Amino acid sequence: MMKDGGGVEGGLVEKSGRGNGGVVEEEEEEEVAPMRTAETLMRILPMALSLTALLLILKNSQSNDFGAISSSDFAGFKYLIYANGVCAGYSLLSAFYAAVPRSSTISRAWTIFFFDQVFTYVILAAGAASAEIVFLEFRGDASITWSEACGTYGRFCRKAVASVAITFAATVCYAALSLLSSYRLFARYDPPPVSFYPHAKELQVPAFPR
Amino acid sequence: MMKDGGGVEGGLVEKSGRGNGGVVEEEEEEEVAPMRTAETLMRILPMALSLTALLLILKNSQSNDFGAISSSDFAGFKYLIYANGVCAGYSLLSAFYAAVPRSSTISRAWTIFFFDQVFTYVILAAGAASAEIVFLEFRGDASITWSEACGTYGRFCRKAVASVAITFAATVCYAALSLLSSYRLFARYDPPPVSFYPHAKELQVPAFPR
Repeated sequence: MMKDGGGVEGGLVEKSGRGNGGVVEEEEEEEVAPMRTAETLMRILPMALSLTALLLILKNSQSNDFGAISSSDFAGFKYLIYANGVCAGYSLLSAFYAAVPRSSTISRAWTIFFFDQVFTYVILAAGAASAEIVFLEFRGDASITWSEACGTYGRFCRKAVASVAITFAATVCYAALSLLSSYRLFARYDPPPVSFYPHAKELQVPAFPR
Repeated sequence: MMKDGGGVEGGLVEKSGRGNGGVVEEEEEEEVAPMRTAETLMRILPMALSLTALLLILKNSQSNDFGAISSSDFAGFKYLIYANGVCAGYSLLSAFYAAVPRSSTISRAWTIFFFDQVFTYVILAAGAASAEIVFLEFRGDASITWSEACGTYGRFCRKAVASVAITFAATVCYAALSLLSSYRLFARYDPPPVSFYPHAKELQVPAFPR
């Protein structure tokens, strides 16, 4: 539930109580600007990682006397390409969004939160599926006579491994961003009803001291 | 940062303002008990799904004139078994935890939050990797001469598909639980500094009206 009347007014009183007028705004702008820069960088990093992973896997192919192999032969790798492309695009957009100072409404917080969550799951699934392909290429599977491929197509496999590893690095970034945006969103709401917290005093232990 | 002095006191004043003494506690117990039951059920459901998925894939094997195939031939399926097992165990523990009324401290909220997040990612990765195996079993891959296996081992493939589908259903439950626990956790903290919200009035739009 939303922080109701008393809570919000209490918050507003508290906030305006910190000082008066322009001084407060300047002080808070000083406090907020580095956070904005940090978030923008946090969103540019996975974009760079996703683009690198995409470029590595996109043109990955090898041909030799035994035949030819290419990323486009594997549906899983195609999904990896699309997932990294879409995530890189979203990261770019959300980095712009984070860079520009603007009013942050509830609906915007929900939007960023929603997409951060979805893309974290999308990129993780792509990484996991591709990791499985790479694993099978290295090991093969005797029970259904799938031969290993990496002895023959070593360069292809190394590039695929690099792309998958970078995708997992991007996944870690997305997971961190989805935590950040869920904090941004849920910190605006009241905690669940009181009797979950009979020892309300404990709530005052500063977990993130300033 | 934690809700600081003014905020917490404001909150406590607001909460004690709802009524007085035992009446409040009873009213709140009435309000909280159904939530507790709902959360317990929300944690039992993915346990049931994970166990079903585990049992389907665990003893999945088929032999015929062409040979024999078994889940244990695939590292990805083994990961699916372990992931579903660990997640089912965690769900059971956390269902007990949710069922019993107790004080909910910050550290407990962080613990539940952390494990909900981790197991969501673990089960999603297991589902995605196994889905890739199943996909390759159905389609094969001509470029590296991996033959399809489901024409020969149809029953094995159908069970694997069912297990993967149920795993994804469990993933959806875990994702919902990780949202719930991040709300529980982050609702205890103050939102980021004020100048992110120049139009503080907008905060009062009830997104979850009671």
